[in-house]
Amino acid sequence: MIAIIGTWKMCREGLMEAHEMLKSGACAADAVTHAVVRVEDDPAYCSVGYGGLPDRDGHVMTDAAFMDGTSLRMGGVMSAENIKNPILAARMLCGREINCLLAGRGAELFALRHGLKMRDMRTEASMRRWREAVPERPERLTAYTGHDTVCVLALDENGRLAAGVSTSGLFMKDPGRVGDSPLIGSGFYADDRFGAAAATGLGEDIMRGCLSYETVSRMKRGESPQQACEGALRELAARKIELGENADNMSLIALSPDGRFGAATTLPCFPFAAARGGESGLYAVDGNGLTRAISPDELAGVD
Amino acid sequence: MIAIIGTWKMCREGLMEAHEMLKSGACAADAVTHAVVRVEDDPAYCSVGYGGLPDRDGHVMTDAAFMDGTSLRMGGVMSAENIKNPILAARMLCGREINCLLAGRGAELFALRHGLKMRDMRTEASMRRWREAVPERPERLTAYTGHDTVCVLALDENGRLAAGVSTSGLFMKDPGRVGDSPLIGSGFYADDRFGAAAATGLGEDIMRGCLSYETVSRMKRGESPQQACEGALRELAARKIELGENADNMSLIALSPDGRFGAATTLPCFPFAAARGGESGLYAVDGNGLTRAISPDELAGVD
Repeated sequence: MIAIIGTWKMCREGLMEAHEMLKSGACAADAVTHAVVRVEDDPAYCSVGYGGLPDRDGHVMTDAAFMDGTSLRMGGVMSAENIKNPILAARMLCGREINCLLAGRGAELFALRHGLKMRDMRTEASMRRWREAVPERPERLTAYTGHDTVCVLALDENGRLAAGVSTSGLFMKDPGRVGDSPLIGSGFYADDRFGAAAATGLGEDIMRGCLSYETVSRMKRGESPQQACEGALRELAARKIELGENADNMSLIALSPDGRFGAATTLPCFPFAAARGGESGLYAVDGNGLTRAISPDELAGVD
Repeated sequence: MIAIIGTWKMCREGLMEAHEMLKSGACAADAVTHAVVRVEDDPAYCSVGYGGLPDRDGHVMTDAAFMDGTSLRMGGVMSAENIKNPILAARMLCGREINCLLAGRGAELFALRHGLKMRDMRTEASMRRWREAVPERPERLTAYTGHDTVCVLALDENGRLAAGVSTSGLFMKDPGRVGDSPLIGSGFYADDRFGAAAATGLGEDIMRGCLSYETVSRMKRGESPQQACEGALRELAARKIELGENADNMSLIALSPDGRFGAATTLPCFPFAAARGGESGLYAVDGNGLTRAISPDELAGVD
């Protein structure tokens, strides 16, 4: 069984191509990487890679991570500028025993030394939005102000699971701010034996519940990917509500070692793309865990 | 019941003072902060704060994090230079809804803006070791080449748990390298309802099992802190051995909401300091989970 799932409508084209790659025998790692690179390279998506929205000081700072479910190794870059495809740096770092998670200038040096392409990640559109936002200095930014992480999970015909995530983080974030995305267990986790999971939404909230590790732990204890996503999310949301906070900004996807999907959200509606065996499509899950197929034109304004 | 536990002999003096603070009614957060600051300020300890061993390029780059078990909020700095007490920046960041985890220059700017003391963290002794190591460029660094993280967990009389960790990371690490310490769930976790845990050793291995979150999860499911530490560590070590790797570089501490301790290690011997109610002491646990009291002079050469 092959399968692949990714967050948001923005991953659809790359994910469909990655599905074809899996059908032709590609490994999960290559499929994940391909799907994430496609989103990073597309300036239409302002929360990932090229054309991502800048931080408070006008810099587009990216975070990305990759995890191999066979070796439990991960690689990641955080708060990195000018790396054209942060996921490629993360994938390359994943092979290392030490020094596999690099921040800032160190991540950029790694990319330069290893021949990865560098690029000014700013576009006219992203800098226009920054110039317009600067006078306001919004006191309260929300994760959906043009933000979200692309997360892709894949299972190949050899039973290998891989996870990849990439984001330019919160629009107008403080310099150096890192969310859940490049943090193992929070933004992503993959273990061939039990499953893979990844999260998108407000990183500062997701990390408080280590949502991806919690989801995989639940699969390990026998829950389906759907039960695991819903259970992990419901528990953290309930705690946040007890604490008097909102819980309206977290979404999760999961994939089991036998190719079943899960998705859950505290949004009214969270779109994702998925393919399994020979079938593929675009779906949306609501806050009650109900999933339905959607068309690419539905949910206008949501990437 | 009040209680406090910290990794390695190096935390003993600060931990004993923090124990007195707890007895006088201080909160867990203040006790943890005090104990960690003491280690950061002491140049005798070459793996934390002032006098920490530099990275490959001769910079002392620090990571620290703080977590409040009541709110599940965390704050952290990663790959930060010249902040005299990284734990104070982490503690201050813990109050924020967003932008609570900062890397590199962003972390330094935060510290500067908030009036935290800055300091050149290099000492003659640490730079001498760096100059001696440079010609060799060791291909394989191990975590115990003058490395380890100070981790402190405390419980106050109001039942609040807090966790704090601080490290200068692996000696001769690549620029920008971040280990498990500032990663929630890997280096630390605290939840008033279930317990707190923290890890020390080779970060790249610890993070593969999200050891601190796994330990607290086990306490949530009814295991004692000792069972939880041993179970979490044994499971990851077994997996590493299956993968043909060493598993000799990880240690864990835990504290339950009723003040019981746990400690486990894959080293032959892992020293820690602890205090509970009116009693306090220095202990060591071996690879079988057996804990005994030790004197400060035992285990010469180990901080």
